Amino acid sequence: MDWDAYARQGCAVGGALEIVGDRWTMTVLRELFLGIRRFGEIQRNTGAAKNILADRLQALVGHGVLERVQYQERPPRYEYRLTEKGLDLYPILVGLMAWGAKHAPSAAEPLVLVQHKACGAVGLPQLTCTGCGEPVGPRDMRALAGPGAVLKQTA
Amino acid sequence: MDWDAYARQGCAVGGALEIVGDRWTMTVLRELFLGIRRFGEIQRNTGAAKNILADRLQALVGHGVLERVQYQERPPRYEYRLTEKGLDLYPILVGLMAWGAKHAPSAAEPLVLVQHKACGAVGLPQLTCTGCGEPVGPRDMRALAGPGAVLKQTA
Repeated sequence: MDWDAYARQGCAVGGALEIVGDRWTMTVLRELFLGIRRFGEIQRNTGAAKNILADRLQALVGHGVLERVQYQERPPRYEYRLTEKGLDLYPILVGLMAWGAKHAPSAAEPLVLVQHKACGAVGLPQLTCTGCGEPVGPRDMRALAGPGAVLKQTA
Repeated sequence: MDWDAYARQGCAVGGALEIVGDRWTMTVLRELFLGIRRFGEIQRNTGAAKNILADRLQALVGHGVLERVQYQERPPRYEYRLTEKGLDLYPILVGLMAWGAKHAPSAAEPLVLVQHKACGAVGLPQLTCTGCGEPVGPRDMRALAGPGAVLKQTA
């Protein structure tokens, strides 16, 4: 496959990165996945400046990744919750956890472990083939042109 | 678990995002995973400005995610290749592909399909529990305090 010959318009990775391809955004989502839902708590845990955090939260609500829900009437207080679309980001977060734990210079002993509720096993889930169930990595897979692949226009 | 009570120093996700938490960086890595290795080709396919691309490539080489290899002597020409550390980013890229294909407004028909070389199945690999092998999502897993979890200092 000569992937240089194909256009990148409509690329799923590019589309995802337009929404979550920002360090603060993924850091904020880490908090939401840990059940941290309030502005002040998210701010303290991430160290994000107020204006940056407000901007990222607003964008995530706009994209339907989070919803803003009132949890108190007087005075009115709001919290943020992951939508189904937001919950679908979980594999990306797991990927960041695994890679950071193995390779990030700043990462020492794991802060967070994950446990499968159903079977009790502790450990990050792994990528496996949907066909045969075997664990897979980049060398096990090949990239094929999909139905949306379009050759570049050449003059 | 009250995750608000724990410090975030040494967080694996934060550590990973310090290196790859940038839209251009992950877009560049997409190209490398497609086998695109030369500056000009990466630039054309990503639309990144030359200075941004040069900056991101240099940082990725500095972090040991890519290596810069001379492939021609006269005139000297270089290309970039994923190291083992770089190849370990594959699950994050798969996560972005899956989420973008399902949720990104710009994504239409898939440009890229992936095939398991060993069994021939076509489709993105999925996250499964390392214990029981069942497919898992965020609702199936709980987060436990790991050995590196440290309670916040309170005055």
